[in-house]
Amino acid sequence: MKIQLVNPNLTQAVTDRVLESALAAARPGTAFEAVTGAFGPEVIGSRAENALAAHGVLDLVARHAPGCDAVVLAVSLDTAAWACRELLPIPVVAMTEAALHTAALLAPRFGVLTYGRRLGPVYRELVEACGLAGRLAGVGTVEVTPQQTFSEPEFVLASVREAASALVEDGAEAVVLAGAAMAAMAPRLQADLPVPLLDGVACAVGLAEMLAHQRWPRPALGSVSGTGGREVRGVSPELRNLFAQK
Amino acid sequence: MKIQLVNPNLTQAVTDRVLESALAAARPGTAFEAVTGAFGPEVIGSRAENALAAHGVLDLVARHAPGCDAVVLAVSLDTAAWACRELLPIPVVAMTEAALHTAALLAPRFGVLTYGRRLGPVYRELVEACGLAGRLAGVGTVEVTPQQTFSEPEFVLASVREAASALVEDGAEAVVLAGAAMAAMAPRLQADLPVPLLDGVACAVGLAEMLAHQRWPRPALGSVSGTGGREVRGVSPELRNLFAQK
Amino acid sequence: MKIQLVNPNLTQAVTDRVLESALAAARPGTAFEAVTGAFGPEVIGSRAENALAAHGVLDLVARHAPGCDAVVLAVSLDTAAWACRELLPIPVVAMTEAALHTAALLAPRFGVLTYGRRLGPVYRELVEACGLAGRLAGVGTVEVTPQQTFSEPEFVLASVREAASALVEDGAEAVVLAGAAMAAMAPRLQADLPVPLLDGVACAVGLAEMLAHQRWPRPALGSVSGTGGREVRGVSPELRNLFAQK
Amino acid sequence: MKIQLVNPNLTQAVTDRVLESALAAARPGTAFEAVTGAFGPEVIGSRAENALAAHGVLDLVARHAPGCDAVVLAVSLDTAAWACRELLPIPVVAMTEAALHTAALLAPRFGVLTYGRRLGPVYRELVEACGLAGRLAGVGTVEVTPQQTFSEPEFVLASVREAASALVEDGAEAVVLAGAAMAAMAPRLQADLPVPLLDGVACAVGLAEMLAHQRWPRPALGSVSGTGGREVRGVSPELRNLFAQK
Amino acid sequence: MKIQLVNPNLTQAVTDRVLESALAAARPGTAFEAVTGAFGPEVIGSRAENALAAHGVLDLVARHAPGCDAVVLAVSLDTAAWACRELLPIPVVAMTEAALHTAALLAPRFGVLTYGRRLGPVYRELVEACGLAGRLAGVGTVEVTPQQTFSEPEFVLASVREAASALVEDGAEAVVLAGAAMAAMAPRLQADLPVPLLDGVACAVGLAEMLAHQRWPRPALGSVSGTGGREVRGVSPELRNLFAQK
Amino acid sequence: MKIQLVNPNLTQAVTDRVLESALAAARPGTAFEAVTGAFGPEVIGSRAENALAAHGVLDLVARHAPGCDAVVLAVSLDTAAWACRELLPIPVVAMTEAALHTAALLAPRFGVLTYGRRLGPVYRELVEACGLAGRLAGVGTVEVTPQQTFSEPEFVLASVREAASALVEDGAEAVVLAGAAMAAMAPRLQADLPVPLLDGVACAVGLAEMLAHQRWPRPALGSVSGTGGREVRGVSPELRNLFAQK
Repeated sequence: MKIQLVNPNLTQAVTDRVLESALAAARPGTAFEAVTGAFGPEVIGSRAENALAAHGVLDLVARHAPGCDAVVLAVSLDTAAWACRELLPIPVVAMTEAALHTAALLAPRFGVLTYGRRLGPVYRELVEACGLAGRLAGVGTVEVTPQQTFSEPEFVLASVREAASALVEDGAEAVVLAGAAMAAMAPRLQADLPVPLLDGVACAVGLAEMLAHQRWPRPALGSVSGTGGREVRGVSPELRNLFAQK
Repeated sequence: MKIQLVNPNLTQAVTDRVLESALAAARPGTAFEAVTGAFGPEVIGSRAENALAAHGVLDLVARHAPGCDAVVLAVSLDTAAWACRELLPIPVVAMTEAALHTAALLAPRFGVLTYGRRLGPVYRELVEACGLAGRLAGVGTVEVTPQQTFSEPEFVLASVREAASALVEDGAEAVVLAGAAMAAMAPRLQADLPVPLLDGVACAVGLAEMLAHQRWPRPALGSVSGTGGREVRGVSPELRNLFAQK
Repeated sequence: MKIQLVNPNLTQAVTDRVLESALAAARPGTAFEAVTGAFGPEVIGSRAENALAAHGVLDLVARHAPGCDAVVLAVSLDTAAWACRELLPIPVVAMTEAALHTAALLAPRFGVLTYGRRLGPVYRELVEACGLAGRLAGVGTVEVTPQQTFSEPEFVLASVREAASALVEDGAEAVVLAGAAMAAMAPRLQADLPVPLLDGVACAVGLAEMLAHQRWPRPALGSVSGTGGREVRGVSPELRNLFAQK
Repeated sequence: MKIQLVNPNLTQAVTDRVLESALAAARPGTAFEAVTGAFGPEVIGSRAENALAAHGVLDLVARHAPGCDAVVLAVSLDTAAWACRELLPIPVVAMTEAALHTAALLAPRFGVLTYGRRLGPVYRELVEACGLAGRLAGVGTVEVTPQQTFSEPEFVLASVREAASALVEDGAEAVVLAGAAMAAMAPRLQADLPVPLLDGVACAVGLAEMLAHQRWPRPALGSVSGTGGREVRGVSPELRNLFAQK
Repeated sequence: MKIQLVNPNLTQAVTDRVLESALAAARPGTAFEAVTGAFGPEVIGSRAENALAAHGVLDLVARHAPGCDAVVLAVSLDTAAWACRELLPIPVVAMTEAALHTAALLAPRFGVLTYGRRLGPVYRELVEACGLAGRLAGVGTVEVTPQQTFSEPEFVLASVREAASALVEDGAEAVVLAGAAMAAMAPRLQADLPVPLLDGVACAVGLAEMLAHQRWPRPALGSVSGTGGREVRGVSPELRNLFAQK
Repeated sequence: MKIQLVNPNLTQAVTDRVLESALAAARPGTAFEAVTGAFGPEVIGSRAENALAAHGVLDLVARHAPGCDAVVLAVSLDTAAWACRELLPIPVVAMTEAALHTAALLAPRFGVLTYGRRLGPVYRELVEACGLAGRLAGVGTVEVTPQQTFSEPEFVLASVREAASALVEDGAEAVVLAGAAMAAMAPRLQADLPVPLLDGVACAVGLAEMLAHQRWPRPALGSVSGTGGREVRGVSPELRNLFAQK
């Protein structure tokens, strides 16, 4: 089984970390094609960068999804997930929704932890859009940047540990790490925390393996069914062709 | 990997159907121990039978979960799921929640289909308790009994096909078959329906395999953590011991 | 009028306290049959014990409800309330729902107070299932066990007083004492608190008296109507007969 | 025990019907003082009339509540209920909230039935404000006026029977009759319907009797506590004094 | 264009402040008729005063709306807003709903700030009734009276500044000043706060200008359409005539 | 005052219709710069096209917003609205949110009407994200394409009239026309419908005029505040510069 790992931002270090987490989580026999964005934001740190990254996600799946059995969106705002499902005949799983649904099987209420107070409300909106707000204990943030994950790893780990503990204090019975750059961080912190610490990439890989194995069909009617072919212009030929597919 | 399949009602034919669905969905190397209730309702068809079946579920996991890697509750009201998670050190996945979370990865809004108008509201409550009411397109029912699934299979299939189509007409972009006796029914009907038809047992097996493979810890604090030992009386020695575990 | 008071746990001291509260709240002419569980948990302190206690509740009503005019469930998780309504021709009122609905007539928003942080989320779920989450100001907990109510009464009273005050500070305009062992505690603390302190047993007795007096019929259709007779096995003859009733 | 029955509209026939229902529901020993508005709408049939009736309700309780043990608002939009609670030291129960909370003890989901399609949305808002929208199966209306209840009783009964049946078909497991002029109608229709038909006046009388008997204190803090005295002008001396009370 | 500014309480200083804010916000060519209540509460500080003020609002619009192009309710509990819409052929905008809808165009989540802890819950209910609770970050209060706004302006400004900052700390990305006496306060504080501070009167004037300019029709059917004429008694001739209009 | 009208799809006829509606709604002195997308979808008819159009919206505002006083997003899925607010120092109003907030001032509950059953669920999600789901009476669709608006205008008008009437029948007291190609359609249909028919472009123009006139500041903190400069690559120089602004 081959799974595409889509990182629409331009930071290879994030892709590397995502791949590390995916490999640790995968079953034997699962291979990955990890791809990094070619245009768009260096790192998604705002609503506008996320909006722009949607194009990047679509372009990456247009180029690399063919030949894969599933797609994992390794972008913690789950950018363009339903758009990808509409365009592709294979399962698409985004990392934060994956962690939320997995958390829902382990704990009655869970927290979400991310980089920067600025994006806290955006993750709350994501949980609401996912329909799981009723199970959200809270959203926590650490005042570090994704880049510091690589430049000051110990400081970032300590910050995440502290913020996760605060979520537990507020009633979280599991904690979702929402940040592609947080991939592979859970194993290093789990021993210090009394509740499961969920890595979205690992969860998404597991769910993508399951969906690809069980071969559920995608809807042939409704808001995520195939469109029958749409015309778009001014984008890469691969993406134009993907939109045009009957 | 060995997964316990728990059918707390007393009908072996249901257990057989559940096992058939589980085997079809499982990965190579997954084995099952399918168990049927020894006391309680013949078939769960009311709130009171469901309340009683909780004891049966606990008794079955006390007797048979040791030695397994995960538990699948093959009872479509997800009876005692959180209670089992509290008592057991291995993942527990109930069939209807499994189908709901899987549906949430495939379709924005989904319907739930079950046996008998009487239980429709109970499934609505289950979806609400699961926190996914915001994504529910509707609850449909077929006016047949679970037992007719075995005695009049063609009539039941036709009824389910019709009710599923009505849910699609009302906006369901996927349909969850909520009924242990409906296990293994999805493959026979999928070709006739434009949206995915989700079998709870299959979904639960897939999610249990994933959770057991990825080895997420269970909460060591909060409302589903181990209790440290509780005293109960008048139940089987296996169940008494399970409650008493430190 | 005779009301059955059902305590499904095995602790007679709790039943005694419940009866004390019931007698204080009742009208002249109301008699009680207070019964204690014969199997199951000593005290309900976890989700699994609550799931098991459902069988105990059903067994107690099967044995003792005949001849009564109403049933009060003196178990603060309202265990098997709808199941009892389905099985019995007389009104059934559970203690915490009773306190919530009473609070709703006295105050716009109310808090719920219970034993142990562990069960806090379970009471939140109960309020949600009751449909009243929109009026919940918060759930507070005291870090004492129900048993300490009897062994260290002053310490427990002080803890409850403090936790109730904290709920008031957070916006509760009434406080529900959710714990059968808290029965009869409200009168001792009311003078110290600026908002009503609601005893679930007292509220349930009052509502049961009202329903039994006004003789509202129970639904003859739908998810709590009589089943017309169901077969269950391996339970007491009284319970088997109750399920089998036409 | 004496209970004031407040009908803020100007139609004595409605007050008579309300009193009939109250007497049928009351316990021995409960007396009523039924009062009719002296100014304001003939019958409340619009949002503006309801807004105006708030003054009428306050004026009536200022004049007649002294000497009573409880107040029942016999106006189906529950006009000024929280305002009355703020002003009066005795329990206040409004008829539709009373029926909703009573219904919640009898059935998982219930419908509300009222006069005129125009007011349907207003009752939905009332249920939402009460916090019970999650248990609402639907709002039904009959295209007759309250006045026709007296002039064409058989036609109105037939209309209500039909509309209640439609609510049951849509999933209502109990039906609240929301209309003061519908008081005393339930007994005449109950035999024709498979679910409880709740008369708000009867429910409110029962709850008022319970609250007055159990003597729960009112909040001494928060949004319904006594104000300590407020100055209002241009109203009746009784109402001015009620506002001014320390 | 002429807009009526309705202050139903009896305090001319509030009307003056409202007019100041309205003039500052209005476009060239917009004139105002600012009116103060002739009966009812000095200042609305409780639920009961608000209930009473509904009559005052209706009386003021009956007397002064004729000849105006729109009505602005300069009462921060938006008293009788829907009632006015039902009675009048011109747009009606209430100050707090206006600020909430304006805030919703500027910030994902907003806070509401008002006078006195007592009224905090009432504003929460107003936001819920407006349907915007999902975007509410919190309700803050200052422990000063509206009257102190005039007698101790600096102290009140400091209190509002502090409470607004606390709302921002809790996640508010805009703050609505809910209090007619707070009109014209925003410009003095805006420089000290990092998020928009919304004056309800200004917002309402802007929205009223827009609605009056664009001339959207009002509903001719449903719960706010004209009634076709209703009879009310014991009120001013102007109000009686307004109710009676065909 | 100059307002940019942003149509991110590639169909000039839609832009023309949008401008027609904007001119009809605007105040004297308001000028428009109406721009059409240079890349992306011909017409947005699917989730993927909408995701792609976000880039187009950002590119258009980067090129043309400088020099304008406000931006109106004339795309009925309100594509990238919060992203634009984050990037621009001037007010941004999207057409469907504008119509929803305007409807909320005119009617208690409203419906939304759009092109094609496929997009119905997407508009429901938009209303939910806007926080106004509690006021939604329903989503209706017409089975015509936006292009038919120009090629078969009478047929489309008849379809919209019929679907709007159906929404009214289901309880809508106002109807939002959600479709940029529906701009300017409302005046032609209003006379046939008993409730207001809201044109999103007109509403957005009115709200943009109001916000630009009243000069509310944008948040300087939180999830829509300026970022202080972000680096993006592979986009137009104008857009790169917009992201980089301090």
